[in-house]
Amino acid sequence: MSDRVTIFDTTLRDGEQSPGISLDAAEKLEIAEQLARLGVDYIEAGFPVASQGDFEAVQTIARTVGLRGPNATDGLRGPNATDGLRGPNATDGLRGPNATDGPVVAALSRTHLADVDRCWDALRDAERARIHVFISTSPNHMEHMLKMNQAQVLDAIRSGVARAREHTDDVEFSPQDATRTPLDFMLEVLAAAVEAGATTLNIPDTVGYGIPWDFGALIQYIRREVAGDYVTSVHCHNDLGLAVANSLAGVQAGARQIEVCVNGLGERAGNAALEEVVMALKIRPDQFPGLATGVRTEELARTSRLVSRLTGYPVQYNKAVVGRNAFAHESGIHQHGVLAERSTYEIIDANSVGQVGSQIVLGKHSGRHAFADTLDKMGITVTGAVLNSAFARFKELADRKVQITDADLEAIVAEELGSTVSSAFSLEDLEVSGGTVGVPRARVVLSRDGEKLEATSEGDGMIDAACKAINAATGVDGRLTDFNVSSVTGGIDALGDVIIQLEADGVRVSGRGVSTDVVEASARAFLSAVNKVMRVQARAEVRQTEVGP
Amino acid sequence: MSDRVTIFDTTLRDGEQSPGISLDAAEKLEIAEQLARLGVDYIEAGFPVASQGDFEAVQTIARTVGLRGPNATDGLRGPNATDGLRGPNATDGLRGPNATDGPVVAALSRTHLADVDRCWDALRDAERARIHVFISTSPNHMEHMLKMNQAQVLDAIRSGVARAREHTDDVEFSPQDATRTPLDFMLEVLAAAVEAGATTLNIPDTVGYGIPWDFGALIQYIRREVAGDYVTSVHCHNDLGLAVANSLAGVQAGARQIEVCVNGLGERAGNAALEEVVMALKIRPDQFPGLATGVRTEELARTSRLVSRLTGYPVQYNKAVVGRNAFAHESGIHQHGVLAERSTYEIIDANSVGQVGSQIVLGKHSGRHAFADTLDKMGITVTGAVLNSAFARFKELADRKVQITDADLEAIVAEELGSTVSSAFSLEDLEVSGGTVGVPRARVVLSRDGEKLEATSEGDGMIDAACKAINAATGVDGRLTDFNVSSVTGGIDALGDVIIQLEADGVRVSGRGVSTDVVEASARAFLSAVNKVMRVQARAEVRQTEVGP
Repeated sequence: MSDRVTIFDTTLRDGEQSPGISLDAAEKLEIAEQLARLGVDYIEAGFPVASQGDFEAVQTIARTVGLRGPNATDGLRGPNATDGLRGPNATDGLRGPNATDGPVVAALSRTHLADVDRCWDALRDAERARIHVFISTSPNHMEHMLKMNQAQVLDAIRSGVARAREHTDDVEFSPQDATRTPLDFMLEVLAAAVEAGATTLNIPDTVGYGIPWDFGALIQYIRREVAGDYVTSVHCHNDLGLAVANSLAGVQAGARQIEVCVNGLGERAGNAALEEVVMALKIRPDQFPGLATGVRTEELARTSRLVSRLTGYPVQYNKAVVGRNAFAHESGIHQHGVLAERSTYEIIDANSVGQVGSQIVLGKHSGRHAFADTLDKMGITVTGAVLNSAFARFKELADRKVQITDADLEAIVAEELGSTVSSAFSLEDLEVSGGTVGVPRARVVLSRDGEKLEATSEGDGMIDAACKAINAATGVDGRLTDFNVSSVTGGIDALGDVIIQLEADGVRVSGRGVSTDVVEASARAFLSAVNKVMRVQARAEVRQTEVGP
Repeated sequence: MSDRVTIFDTTLRDGEQSPGISLDAAEKLEIAEQLARLGVDYIEAGFPVASQGDFEAVQTIARTVGLRGPNATDGLRGPNATDGLRGPNATDGLRGPNATDGPVVAALSRTHLADVDRCWDALRDAERARIHVFISTSPNHMEHMLKMNQAQVLDAIRSGVARAREHTDDVEFSPQDATRTPLDFMLEVLAAAVEAGATTLNIPDTVGYGIPWDFGALIQYIRREVAGDYVTSVHCHNDLGLAVANSLAGVQAGARQIEVCVNGLGERAGNAALEEVVMALKIRPDQFPGLATGVRTEELARTSRLVSRLTGYPVQYNKAVVGRNAFAHESGIHQHGVLAERSTYEIIDANSVGQVGSQIVLGKHSGRHAFADTLDKMGITVTGAVLNSAFARFKELADRKVQITDADLEAIVAEELGSTVSSAFSLEDLEVSGGTVGVPRARVVLSRDGEKLEATSEGDGMIDAACKAINAATGVDGRLTDFNVSSVTGGIDALGDVIIQLEADGVRVSGRGVSTDVVEASARAFLSAVNKVMRVQARAEVRQTEVGP
C-alpha cells in the first residue's frame, strides 16, 4: 500500500453546490490556481453536464492548470489562455525549481454514456484527467430518486465506467449514499466497477451518517472483500460533526485518497475540511506511521481566505487551523503572553499554515509597478484590464487608508475579478444620507458601455436605499437574501469586505465589494451580483438538480 | 455503568474565555436560563477567582437557575432575584408539568485552598453545586507554567480536592493537558484525586491533540486501571477538528459525562459542540446502545442563536446541526424540492432541533401586552426597565419593517439587555451622510442621566465617522477591532444585526446593535460596547491569566 495520501479537492464541485455559491469560470480558475499552489493532487473542477457554465469552467481549468503536468512548458499556457489572468510573460511561482507536477483535473459524471462523453469533452485538453462516475446505491435513493432496481444500477455502473475508461486510464467510481447501502449489494457494486475499469473506489458518506469506528470498519471490510488493483477513497459529510474523524478512520483502515473541501464547504454541513485532515496527518505521524500528503501547508491560510472571499462564506472565528482564533497570538489578547512556551497551549505552529504574514505592504505613494510586483510576490498574477481596474481601486482606497496590507490586496483583486466583462454596469457615483432623523436616501450614477444611468431611492436603511436605487437604474429586480460584512484586517480604518447574496428571477448569486465605507462596499457588492445575474440570464440555462456524492 | 450520558456545558467558562467575548452577569444569566430550558445536566458558570465579575456571575446563576432543584418552589426565586429579568409574578416554562430538575451549577477552581473556598462562596446558595478542581499534569505545563514537580502536583491535588469535598459531595477533578501526560503519572494523579474524594474524573484534551481511537483507548485504560466509584468525563478541544469524534470515542470507552460548548465555542478552535455531540448520540443509537442525554433537542437552534448573539461569534453557514445550511429546505433554494423524500439527503429532522419556527409574529399595530406575551411564549421573560426599552425599540423598528419575526424579537431583547444600567450612554439622534462623493460625516446626540452630549466627526466611512463622533461625545477612546453584520432573517427589509469588538485602554469587549440601517446598528453596537468598557473600568480589575482545561 502506498505511503502517499492523495488529496482530492472538491471545493469547486461539492463545495460550489452550497446554497448561494455561484462561481463563474474566472473565479473557479483563481481557486484552481491556488489549489495547485497548495499542492493538492486532484482538483474536481465541476459537473460538466450540470450546465454550460460548469462545462466551460472545467474546460478552462483543464486548459490552464491541467497543462502543468510533468512535461509542461510555459509556452503551453500561452495559446490556450482564455482570460485576463495570465499573459505570455507571466512569471509563476509554480514553475520555480521546487515545482512539482500540477494537479490532475477531475470532473463528475452520472453513468449515462452521453454524460460521460460530455464530461470527457470538458476534460480532454488536460495533460492528466480523471472522470469521476457516480450513481446512488442505497435503497432510499434507488427507490425515491433513481426509480431503478439493483440489476439496472449494476448495468449502469458497468457501462458508465467502461465508457469512461475508453477516454482515460484514471476513472473513479462512487456508490452514492454508500453508508446506507446494504453490504452485500455494495460488494457487488464495487466489484462491477473494478471489473469495468475503475481505478479508484470512492466510498461517500453522502448524508454524514458515519461514526468513525463504524466507517473505518466499512472501509476495512471493502478492502478485504473487493479484489483488484484500485485505490480506496473516502468522501465524508459533516452532518454530525464527524467528517474529518471519519476520513482519518478511513485512512487508518487503508484508504489512500481523501476527498475534501477548503473551509469544510459542501452540501448542508459540508465535507471534511482540507486543512483539518492535512494537519491531523501532519501533527500526529505516530498515529499514521509513514503516511504523508503533498500539501504545502504554508499556503493553507491564504487558500482559506481566497475561498471564503470568492464563495461569500465567512470562516467562523473558532474554526480549526484557519480560524482567526486558532492561534492565541492572532487573537490580539496577550492573555497567554505570560507563558514562556508557545507549545503550552498550541500544537500547530502558526507559520506552518501561513497564518503569520507580512502586514504593511503598500501605501498611497506606491506606483503601478510596485503594485503589480507585490501581487506577483503574493502569487497573484493579474494582467490587462483586471490589473488596470484593480490598480485604480487600490489608489482610491490608499487615499483613504494609510496602510494597505496583503489581505487588503487580496480583497481588492477578488472584487475586480469578473467585473471587466463587457456590458457590465459599473459604479460611478454614490451619495447617501440617513440616521435616526429623516428617511434614508441614496442616489447612484452607473455607467454601462459609456452610457450613464442615474436613479434615487428611499429605503428602510441606507443600504436598502442604495440597493433600490441600483435596481431602478439597472432594471434588474434584485432581492437581497443575505448580507455579511467583515473587516478585512481589523481596526477602525480597516476595509469593510461585504458579501451579499441576491436573488432575481429565480437566479441566486453572490456579490462582494470592498471599501472603507460599508454602505459603499454594499452597493458595490450588490452591483457585482446584479452583473452576475445578467451573465447567468444571458445563458438562459437551468442547472441540473442532481447533486452528486 | 449508567445509561445516562451527562451533558456538562462550559459555554460560560471555557467558551467565554474566547478572545473578545466578555459577558456580563445579566448576559450569562440569560444563557444559563436557556441552558436550563435546553436540559443540560451541569452548567459551568465561571471561574470565580478569575475576577469579581466572574464571581458575581457564578453567584447570580447559583441563586437563580441553581435554585430549581428537585425541591424548588417558585417563591424561592423571589427574594434572591438580582436583576430585572424575573419578577415575583414571572411565569416560567420550566415549572410546567414536564419540568425536570434544574441543572447543577458548577464552577472552576485551581487547587489552592483559598481558591477552592472562594469558588464555594460563589456556589453555596445553589441547591446542588459542584466544585471543579484542576491542575496541569503534563511535563510541558509543569515545567513552563507551574514550575512544580510531580510530588508537589500530587500534594496540591490531594489538598485541593479534599478541601472541595468538605464543601460539597460533588467534586470534579481535571488533570490539565492529560493527553500529553505520561500514563504512569496520570494513574497516580487520578488515584490521588479519587482517594481525596473526587466523584468525577474529567480527562481534558486541553490542546486538541487526540485522535479518536487513541483517545478512546486512553479512557478505556484509565477506567480499567483507576479503582473507585467515579464518573469518567471527557473534555475535548477541536484544534484538529476532532473534538466531537474524540468525545464520542470517550463515551464508547465508558465515559458518561461530556463537556461541551454551544456552537463549539472555547479556547482557540473551541470545545466539542454541544449540538453535534447530542445529535450524534441521538441519530446513531445503534452505535451507542441504550445511551441517552436529557437534552431537549428542539431548543438547540434557539440556544445557538442566543449564544451567537450574546458572544458576538457568528455561526458559519455550513455548521453541523445549527448552521443555516444544515437543512436543505432552510437554504431557500429548492434544488432538492424535486426529491420526494426528505430522508434522501437529510438524516436529522429540522423540527427536532428547532430549526423551523413560526415566522410572522408581530406587526406595527401590536401592543405592549401582545409584545410581552409573545416573548413569554418564546420563553423570554423580561420585566421592568428592560421590557420598557425593548418595547420602545420594537415600535420604532415596526414602523420601518412590516413583519417582526421571532428571530427579530430575540435580537431586540438581546440588544436591550444590560443597556438599562444607570449612567450608561444612550443614543438619541444620529445623522450621517457619505458615498463616493465628499467626505463621510456623522453627528450624534447621546444622553446620560438626563444630560445631552453632541459631537460631529468625519471618517473613512460613515461607520467610522459615527464611531469617532461617539468617541468624542463619551470621552472613551474606543478602537474597533472587529466588525460583523448579518441580517437577522434574510430579505432586503431584514434587520441588520451588528456585532463589534472594541478595545479601549486594554479592555476588550463586544457590543451589538440592531436596526434596519447598518450604520445606525453599528453606532448602537459601538455605544453598547463603550458602555460595557465603562462598567468594566468602574471595577478596575484585572482578570486571572490562567485559562483552565
